[in-house]
Amino acid sequence: LPTERTFQRIALIGLGLIGGSLALAVRKATPLCILTAYDPAPASMPWARHHGIEVAASVAEAVVAADLVVLAAPLSAFHDLFEELSSVLLEDALVIDLASTKNTALQLASSWLDEAIARYIPCHPIAGSERSGAGHARADLFSGRPVILTPDDRASPAALARVRSWWQMLGCKTVEMSAPEHDRLFAYLSHAPHLIAFAYMAEANALGLSGQDLALAGPGFLDFTRIAGGSPELWADILLDNRAFVGALLQRQKKRLEVLGQLLGRADREELVEALTEARDLRAGLA
Amino acid sequence: LPTERTFQRIALIGLGLIGGSLALAVRKATPLCILTAYDPAPASMPWARHHGIEVAASVAEAVVAADLVVLAAPLSAFHDLFEELSSVLLEDALVIDLASTKNTALQLASSWLDEAIARYIPCHPIAGSERSGAGHARADLFSGRPVILTPDDRASPAALARVRSWWQMLGCKTVEMSAPEHDRLFAYLSHAPHLIAFAYMAEANALGLSGQDLALAGPGFLDFTRIAGGSPELWADILLDNRAFVGALLQRQKKRLEVLGQLLGRADREELVEALTEARDLRAGLA
Repeated sequence: LPTERTFQRIALIGLGLIGGSLALAVRKATPLCILTAYDPAPASMPWARHHGIEVAASVAEAVVAADLVVLAAPLSAFHDLFEELSSVLLEDALVIDLASTKNTALQLASSWLDEAIARYIPCHPIAGSERSGAGHARADLFSGRPVILTPDDRASPAALARVRSWWQMLGCKTVEMSAPEHDRLFAYLSHAPHLIAFAYMAEANALGLSGQDLALAGPGFLDFTRIAGGSPELWADILLDNRAFVGALLQRQKKRLEVLGQLLGRADREELVEALTEARDLRAGLA
Repeated sequence: LPTERTFQRIALIGLGLIGGSLALAVRKATPLCILTAYDPAPASMPWARHHGIEVAASVAEAVVAADLVVLAAPLSAFHDLFEELSSVLLEDALVIDLASTKNTALQLASSWLDEAIARYIPCHPIAGSERSGAGHARADLFSGRPVILTPDDRASPAALARVRSWWQMLGCKTVEMSAPEHDRLFAYLSHAPHLIAFAYMAEANALGLSGQDLALAGPGFLDFTRIAGGSPELWADILLDNRAFVGALLQRQKKRLEVLGQLLGRADREELVEALTEARDLRAGLA
């Protein structure tokens, strides 16, 4: 039933690329839903008004009467946001967050939400761009993409079912796993690749390469380094939050580069082809 | 003048993605040019005939009457190819190769071509794909792309000028540098990124990740690992040929990952943001 799958009033806390894209997707799928946004940075507020999104002056004002509260703010703001929400949340409102790491979000929610923890479902839509800001928002950013839900056993089955249906109504595929499983998997699928791409791109300065040199890069280099164009502040926070898993992956990667360097050093073509073939076969299974 | 910029008969030795794409580009730009191809693997010969390319049974047969010989074969075949060419090359034919590394090609040419070294211009068109084989060839693969020419001081200025004009006629931008400069630059811009992407992709097996896990990857991971879909044999040969420069870059990258790992370990957000910002600024200057 539509009334079970949709929400009447959604409060969006944070209106960057992710929050903005979600607003556009909700607006398209459920035109009657009232969207209210709060963002401490005023830059996106004209964008919000232009798209028919009500603008609130505070978190408290945004969540009044909301039946769904969406935290689309950076993780660094979550401590204060959960504290504020704990005193203003309606008794039946659901809360989701969209942070890229889930352990910390779940822990902060546990500290502040008391019995409302049953109505909190941590979510991670697997979409994004190296661009940031509502100005780059797209209604189809989440379309056909997975959304990872990481509820723990205090989450109410009804809340989980409703959030799951809502994402599916927006065209997403929902997948459930625990918050630690999520953070371990996305250290590999997202966080460490970002750090490695940032690290590799920075090497150009150390090598003394000029802009003219870099302009000779082919499509492979541009693909490989594209994620190094992301927001340094955003990624520093994600990497720091998930530093145990990311740090372990860096160690493994260093070891692997060491082994490959040894194969190069002794010109062991057979072993090298074998190592590259293992990777090629894995990559060939992906889009 | 068209007669100075084009060739009457071009012999293509090797008909994979690169050779095939070049054939299509030449066919489009200069329909009257006669193209003859030789490839020891017969798989691409039906493709050649379908595109109006004459098929030769040997290198010697392919280069008869050619005024341009294009080596589009893997570098591992160059020793034998230069040896064969040294006895069959016409007195005024130009020779170019399209290998991804240039030092070895130039050295082999020096060993075999005698005075014909004046008519040899090493070339590296900066284009490609993780796909291989003439079946994936595209007439526009090189369109608007740079082509690096790495002649040494024995190259005839007339031969260089003619090859330069020919690439420009095909829609490419030519850039000149020495073979060692090329190999150093492309160790950074192409070879080491491939090795790192292959290494990172292979880690999925060591972590015990399933196909379902990997299917949750976002666009960032897919971009970062796309070049790990390339041919293991082709890339093993490139990496081995350029192993001095690639090995040095691996060392630097390991050191950099070590430093970034330490920043994560002591949660030094300020330094981490600074490191990521340096990379982001460099990446923002590229396409």
